[in-house]
Amino acid sequence: MSYYNKHDLGDTICALATAGGVGAIGVIRVSGSQAITLVNEVFKGKNLTQQPTHTVHFGKIMEGTRVVDEVLASVFIGPKSYTGEHTVELSCHGSPYIQQQILQVLVGKGCRLAKPGEFTLRAFLNKKLDLSQAEAVADLIASNSEESHRTAMMQMRGGFSAQIAHMREQLINFASLIELELDFAEEDVEFAKREELVALVSNIQQLVQTLINSFAYGNAIKNGIPTVIAGKPNAGKSTLLNALVNEERAIVSAIAGTTRDTIEETFVLDGITFRLTDTAGIRHQTSDQIEAIGIERTMAKIQQASIVVYVFDVATTTPQQLAEELHAFAGINAILIPVANKADIATAAQLQAFKQAYQAGVELSAKTQQGVQHLTQTLIEAVRKHEVKNDVVITNLRHYEALRHANDSLQQVLNGIDMRITGELLAFDIRKALMHLGEITGEVTTDDLLANIFSKFCIGK
Amino acid sequence: MSYYNKHDLGDTICALATAGGVGAIGVIRVSGSQAITLVNEVFKGKNLTQQPTHTVHFGKIMEGTRVVDEVLASVFIGPKSYTGEHTVELSCHGSPYIQQQILQVLVGKGCRLAKPGEFTLRAFLNKKLDLSQAEAVADLIASNSEESHRTAMMQMRGGFSAQIAHMREQLINFASLIELELDFAEEDVEFAKREELVALVSNIQQLVQTLINSFAYGNAIKNGIPTVIAGKPNAGKSTLLNALVNEERAIVSAIAGTTRDTIEETFVLDGITFRLTDTAGIRHQTSDQIEAIGIERTMAKIQQASIVVYVFDVATTTPQQLAEELHAFAGINAILIPVANKADIATAAQLQAFKQAYQAGVELSAKTQQGVQHLTQTLIEAVRKHEVKNDVVITNLRHYEALRHANDSLQQVLNGIDMRITGELLAFDIRKALMHLGEITGEVTTDDLLANIFSKFCIGK
Repeated sequence: MSYYNKHDLGDTICALATAGGVGAIGVIRVSGSQAITLVNEVFKGKNLTQQPTHTVHFGKIMEGTRVVDEVLASVFIGPKSYTGEHTVELSCHGSPYIQQQILQVLVGKGCRLAKPGEFTLRAFLNKKLDLSQAEAVADLIASNSEESHRTAMMQMRGGFSAQIAHMREQLINFASLIELELDFAEEDVEFAKREELVALVSNIQQLVQTLINSFAYGNAIKNGIPTVIAGKPNAGKSTLLNALVNEERAIVSAIAGTTRDTIEETFVLDGITFRLTDTAGIRHQTSDQIEAIGIERTMAKIQQASIVVYVFDVATTTPQQLAEELHAFAGINAILIPVANKADIATAAQLQAFKQAYQAGVELSAKTQQGVQHLTQTLIEAVRKHEVKNDVVITNLRHYEALRHANDSLQQVLNGIDMRITGELLAFDIRKALMHLGEITGEVTTDDLLANIFSKFCIGK
Repeated sequence: MSYYNKHDLGDTICALATAGGVGAIGVIRVSGSQAITLVNEVFKGKNLTQQPTHTVHFGKIMEGTRVVDEVLASVFIGPKSYTGEHTVELSCHGSPYIQQQILQVLVGKGCRLAKPGEFTLRAFLNKKLDLSQAEAVADLIASNSEESHRTAMMQMRGGFSAQIAHMREQLINFASLIELELDFAEEDVEFAKREELVALVSNIQQLVQTLINSFAYGNAIKNGIPTVIAGKPNAGKSTLLNALVNEERAIVSAIAGTTRDTIEETFVLDGITFRLTDTAGIRHQTSDQIEAIGIERTMAKIQQASIVVYVFDVATTTPQQLAEELHAFAGINAILIPVANKADIATAAQLQAFKQAYQAGVELSAKTQQGVQHLTQTLIEAVRKHEVKNDVVITNLRHYEALRHANDSLQQVLNGIDMRITGELLAFDIRKALMHLGEITGEVTTDDLLANIFSKFCIGK
């Protein structure tokens, strides 16, 4: 059965909208044509069906004569709600037991438990959001740094939707003109000026290209900049890692430990998330005491990294040795930052030699933490240098792929004009580009696409 | 510094009120004289200071020109709010990052992060709840079964507060009359009829006694009925335990796994929580292959239990052996339920012999699950038989202790009247009883007491 079934829109759905577990309060969201009527049947207080929209009412949720909970019911009369449907939000006591009880009472009255993302799906189907905005809602909830928050917020608030809608509009115009030509095929008229079409398509392609290019940056912002700390055993990699991560722990701990298990190998500097991929493996290697520079086994990881921090012991490594060690990184795409560790016990001459050879390098002592801030600054600058200045950044793989397809179709249009193909074929190529652009904002959707997007949402959203 | 400081009431406080972690939405609660004004300063939308109470408004939380989140702001004008103060509840996206950001923005404008339980403390100080009701809020949030939910809800909605208030009123009356006598000491008048006082105090004592007696049941309801499954190795204890717990798992799993780690050794039957204390120890014993009936080491646990389920292998145990095994439980206070396991492979004669000797016993097969439901029914009945019929049940140790102290003081009053002590001493004893009764509802409080109660609440409540 399809995830999204047109028939389902008639149902009234309910779900816990707040995070699971014990809190002071929990919010249960009910949406659908019968939302207010259904809740009113189990609500002892004012008659909710007679209240204006956007009002809050104290009352009791009853199961027969039993008081299940004292709640605040917020009434939203459709279309003035998140989903566009009638909605009631019940703010109840934050006990999982009570929340389950209230949901049971609602289901008993005919509500259906919502599927993941079903509230936002309804918002999309009721045209409260376009598809890329709906997707941004999930990104916004998952955002854990200033940059990922900024790009998600931008996208949710319209972002590139407007640009894409504008592009599509112009293209649709041309497609119509070309299709009109087909009706007058025998007269050999040209309603759609080919030079203008070339100019428009080139313009659009440039914009699409900019969005495509922003993906690498956007994706890194969303998922964290892949960063590897490499170096010989005992160079001080673990100590440095801890110094970097600890700095972040202090910031993140203000969120009351909620993200403890996900930040294990992640840290945020100046709003940018750095993701230490598989550093655990590198750590193990340290104790495995592997010979040579000991990075061969993790070379694959390093190939995927955007930044490699190469740590070495400046007190015991000769410039000659270091040059050899760094030579192993010659072929990689990543930004390489050589870090002279144990600067606190090195001689002035040793530091001087390093500074001369590697001006972009950093000297520090992971142990005393001296110089660690210089490294964090260097990391931030390395990312900012590649920052996409365009406000609009693509972070979603689906959008990226649709844009690539649109770009290909646009290229075919240009090639077609060049080769003077028939209006029929030209219109076909334009329609293909339109379809791919429409996939992003949801002008063109399929059940599978919707299922794929919304099933990844959490329940209650 | 004191947890509760009178000066603090002037502050406007804020906290995340929903459970931590990622959800569809989160709710941030702001309370205090400046709550609406402060939120309005960072809220882009309607002017919140001009909205009627109990209304909801869509808008953006701004930090300068940056949009932190799109939110719904619910406005509650004091005293018509939970705390009795002006309150705004911000329903934001359920991302810990965003929630932290909004709290930072609010703190930047002069809000203070709330201490645990501070919203409910304010509700108490503003006389929206008495102390026992405030405590019930925490119990309600922690409730995880029908019975614990029922008792907490009863208490939160007034429960025995009214009874205690009524008792106190009558006693205060008498105390005043006796104190009035003191003013006329030389005239030897008796405003307070001693027989009436004896009747009243006896009445109150009876009520207090009922409440005290309800504590054992109430406490078991709140924390679970201490239950032990005992028996020789290989009698089938673990299999039975799993059968019992699994039945519950199926029910509890509807709460989306939130309580997984706490239900390990707990199961709920017909709304009653059974707590298998230290059953792990008993399990280990099974593999230790301890001789004889193997319960000596866990006898201490069994002494604390309310119910002991004694499992034996009916196919291999003679009636003589069983009698000897059960003899070991002769001295315990718990309800003993003999369970003839492996009934599926026993002979009819073996089952017949058991049934004749132990009419209250249960035959079952933990393996095939046949008869397990008979055991659960027997467990439920064993508890229900001891149920306190009085609707009002004490579940709180603090209330229990205050009632015990009140009871002692009341006894001293009765003894004093008996011994014809002076009115001065009599009044003193009555005042003492009044104080202890007042401690329950919070008529009499100290900073330490409030700190002790509210610091155990979660933040945001």
